[in-house]
Amino acid sequence: MTSEAPTRAYRRLSVEERRTQLLDAALSLFAHRAPEEVSLDDVAEAAGVSRPLVYRYFPGGKQQLYEAALRSAAEELQQCFAEPQQGPLTRRLGRALDRYLAFVGRHDAGFSALLQGGSVVETSRTSAIVDGVRRAAAEHILSHLDAEQPGPRLRMTVRMWITTVEAASLIWLDEDKQPPADELRDWLVEQFVACLVAAAGRDAQTAAVVRAALALESAEGPVGALARRVLPVVGDAGHLL
Amino acid sequence: MTSEAPTRAYRRLSVEERRTQLLDAALSLFAHRAPEEVSLDDVAEAAGVSRPLVYRYFPGGKQQLYEAALRSAAEELQQCFAEPQQGPLTRRLGRALDRYLAFVGRHDAGFSALLQGGSVVETSRTSAIVDGVRRAAAEHILSHLDAEQPGPRLRMTVRMWITTVEAASLIWLDEDKQPPADELRDWLVEQFVACLVAAAGRDAQTAAVVRAALALESAEGPVGALARRVLPVVGDAGHLL
Repeated sequence: MTSEAPTRAYRRLSVEERRTQLLDAALSLFAHRAPEEVSLDDVAEAAGVSRPLVYRYFPGGKQQLYEAALRSAAEELQQCFAEPQQGPLTRRLGRALDRYLAFVGRHDAGFSALLQGGSVVETSRTSAIVDGVRRAAAEHILSHLDAEQPGPRLRMTVRMWITTVEAASLIWLDEDKQPPADELRDWLVEQFVACLVAAAGRDAQTAAVVRAALALESAEGPVGALARRVLPVVGDAGHLL
Repeated sequence: MTSEAPTRAYRRLSVEERRTQLLDAALSLFAHRAPEEVSLDDVAEAAGVSRPLVYRYFPGGKQQLYEAALRSAAEELQQCFAEPQQGPLTRRLGRALDRYLAFVGRHDAGFSALLQGGSVVETSRTSAIVDGVRRAAAEHILSHLDAEQPGPRLRMTVRMWITTVEAASLIWLDEDKQPPADELRDWLVEQFVACLVAAAGRDAQTAAVVRAALALESAEGPVGALARRVLPVVGDAGHLL
């Protein structure tokens, strides 16, 4: 029973705790609104503190808060990519995508505003943070593909697919998170398989990666299902062989 | 023989001619430099006129010039997409890509700066211009695919591929236009085929589009070559069927 109500409880936090609290407040505001629609007053109100206190911790104001929030979100997102290197690749990719799409769903409006660009808080620093996440995603995938020293074709294929995932996420948010996340995940996994297989036709390293990856898949898995659904569609195209 | 040398020739242009001249000067500067690296003085110098004259035509200064130049470039780019609706689809797509990549090559630094974002001249208006080009590209492709009332899956596949093309263009510029444009074109066409075929597995409309498109292709064309190169790679994966 605390009989002495902490009317100005925020004085009791340490500098680090206060900073974290302000950042959390900023992050949840920036997650669901475009940066233009978040003011320092909103952050102060959400954290239950005064505007001058926010400035004391973030003298650069909204821009500094936005960048700090973005860095924090970028770290959280990168953790989505971690996945043990075992089992079929499509299973690993699917699990990482599940976490990624959950992240996107939790940061909807902020994610859209960030990737659509044209925002007042966008700078070369914010672009660098976003690019860092893309690079990390590509490195994760290449390490799962077990490609030592990936060549330009394989890198390009992986980078292109990451772009596809981003664009698909934006459309998904734009269309009120339809189709359901698990359908979108399956679709993205299938597109990855298709892009990789097509690229394998022109690149020996990608071909080796595809062969090794297919050997890990099972008939019940996504690649087997994809093959069985696609074969009847292309089956009439014998004139091409 | 003009014995009276036009020392201040620019006074002789009509308002419309002068506007076009300034815009051309701005466009060629914005094509090869980031917007940050182009000043109004540069535009005045390139057009051989005074800075106040530039302001008389573009009172909004650099921002207005940039947007006008971007609109002009967007119109030029949209003309790249026009292509007669006959012959194999991969041939049509390849020709449009040739024109698109030539455009990208002619506007290298400006194209990168625009699509990478974070630029001082980026606004909701510039984003809207870029989105308009993307939408036009998607409509062109869908009309070539002969899909009346394209459903969400088919639309998504086409939009995703357009994103892939943009991202590939940026990487291509970043890597000093390597691989050569015709290799990149072939690769993008193959990726389109692969993405469409994979999407056909889950969508009846896309499957119908793919069947119709494959019937137009020949064994000597890109789809035949792709199929013959890919089959040996996936040939060992009989366990998936």
